Amino acid sequence: MSAHPRLSINQATIKHTTVAQAVQVVTGAGIEAIGLWREQVQEAGLQESAKIIADSGLRYSTHCRGGWFTVPEGPARRAAIDDNRRAIEETATLAAAGAEGSRAVLVLVVGGLPEGSRDLFGARQRVSDAVAELAPDAQAAGVTLALEPLHPMYASDRSVLSTLPQALDIAADFDPAVVGVTVDTFHLWWDPEVLEHIARAGRENRIATYQVCDWKTPLEADNLLSRHYPGDGMIDFGPMTRAVVEAGYDGDIEVELLNQSIWDTPPAEAVRRTVRGFECAVAPYLA
Amino acid sequence: MSAHPRLSINQATIKHTTVAQAVQVVTGAGIEAIGLWREQVQEAGLQESAKIIADSGLRYSTHCRGGWFTVPEGPARRAAIDDNRRAIEETATLAAAGAEGSRAVLVLVVGGLPEGSRDLFGARQRVSDAVAELAPDAQAAGVTLALEPLHPMYASDRSVLSTLPQALDIAADFDPAVVGVTVDTFHLWWDPEVLEHIARAGRENRIATYQVCDWKTPLEADNLLSRHYPGDGMIDFGPMTRAVVEAGYDGDIEVELLNQSIWDTPPAEAVRRTVRGFECAVAPYLA
Repeated sequence: MSAHPRLSINQATIKHTTVAQAVQVVTGAGIEAIGLWREQVQEAGLQESAKIIADSGLRYSTHCRGGWFTVPEGPARRAAIDDNRRAIEETATLAAAGAEGSRAVLVLVVGGLPEGSRDLFGARQRVSDAVAELAPDAQAAGVTLALEPLHPMYASDRSVLSTLPQALDIAADFDPAVVGVTVDTFHLWWDPEVLEHIARAGRENRIATYQVCDWKTPLEADNLLSRHYPGDGMIDFGPMTRAVVEAGYDGDIEVELLNQSIWDTPPAEAVRRTVRGFECAVAPYLA
Repeated sequence: MSAHPRLSINQATIKHTTVAQAVQVVTGAGIEAIGLWREQVQEAGLQESAKIIADSGLRYSTHCRGGWFTVPEGPARRAAIDDNRRAIEETATLAAAGAEGSRAVLVLVVGGLPEGSRDLFGARQRVSDAVAELAPDAQAAGVTLALEPLHPMYASDRSVLSTLPQALDIAADFDPAVVGVTVDTFHLWWDPEVLEHIARAGRENRIATYQVCDWKTPLEADNLLSRHYPGDGMIDFGPMTRAVVEAGYDGDIEVELLNQSIWDTPPAEAVRRTVRGFECAVAPYLA
């Protein structure tokens, strides 16, 4: 079996796997790269996970995920910052264990409005503050923090960061090796200016990772789990993928599918379908 | 009973009413303005609806709704254009029947991707084309076409227009009396630049109507019906409402709530709850 050389499977696509199982399924499909989730890494143990990655020969594409920066100062915020410091260490360790071409990228989902608050502006300021606090740790560890704008339908509960310019404006205060952005088709495809935004991200050297995932109407009842194999939905992957290529991003491209029916599919089958979807809907634009 | 003098009830909030019932409930609550939906107007008959409005002493705030402009040229598109011409006539007739201060505003929901298409760019161009085709009719009838950007979660199925600048750019080719925009908190609250966009809409004299409606997490399983009374959700109505006031909009402010549980509430009770929500969450910013 073989797959596109730039395809990486994000473990969220095969959520019900251990690190060892995920690596086995991904290598078994002829895929060259993987991104793991923190919960599973912590369950297996960081050193054991790093050993599994090293033995696999896979590249490590991203670590998912840090963030949750919007709570006001206090014990909960301190705990979140400390947890992100651990995530930075995990990222560095796993990327070092991966094959050549691995990327030490920690994806950040910044969080929604704190309980009881309607203050979007304050929440966004606290995101900037948290990035400033963590940047020295990331720099010291050689890790890139990848701010991910999520679809605006998650603005209240998961991410007060909804657009690429918002993420780029926060990143602007830092070295591109330390703070970058995540470009995800599912979150950004609707934006009438997304191609210009991707071009700007390229000029500013900020694209830390590119994720592809499809949007389908109607949404699932739980909108968090409404992601689909590339090609199964309404997104034309051509314009955005070409823009990312022209912007100079040449790293792995992850497929991260949160979807109950995909999770109910045997992992090897879900990965095969991902390989096929990527081949048809994304790969043609990577030439 | 009395209500804020700028509050208008959009009939979608009390969907299961005839025109006569809607007018009765709204006047009974001491409200001064109403916006009707085309389905109900057609059921009652246009002239009968106009008579009911005239007899009520209510202002007419908007007519809902026209649009569905994204289908390619052919019989379906011709039918949609013709139907919008009828909607323009309805709008003119009902606004003329309303009390002084009525506005001849036709709200436009432009449509999503046509069946089987992934071409957002083409769909958006067809929206501009349709507006150009209808503008002379609107001008002749003294009607303002109010392009409504919908929340990006509707980009595939209901509106390829997702932001205020998109709507303003389309409107720019026309007289502000002929093509304007709808500012709706539910659709725009997440936008990090919404206040600047509202200011621009004001400078360009394009705000044809302002609608207030709250966002709550989690969304309803059917995301179309996920709208809530002002004050019941996560939106801070202060910044947007002040921006709309500062932008010079001084017309009626509609509450349009698509929500099954509100539809299941007796209309008079839903209107009372709307009056209260508006009073607490919106009115303080209209001083």
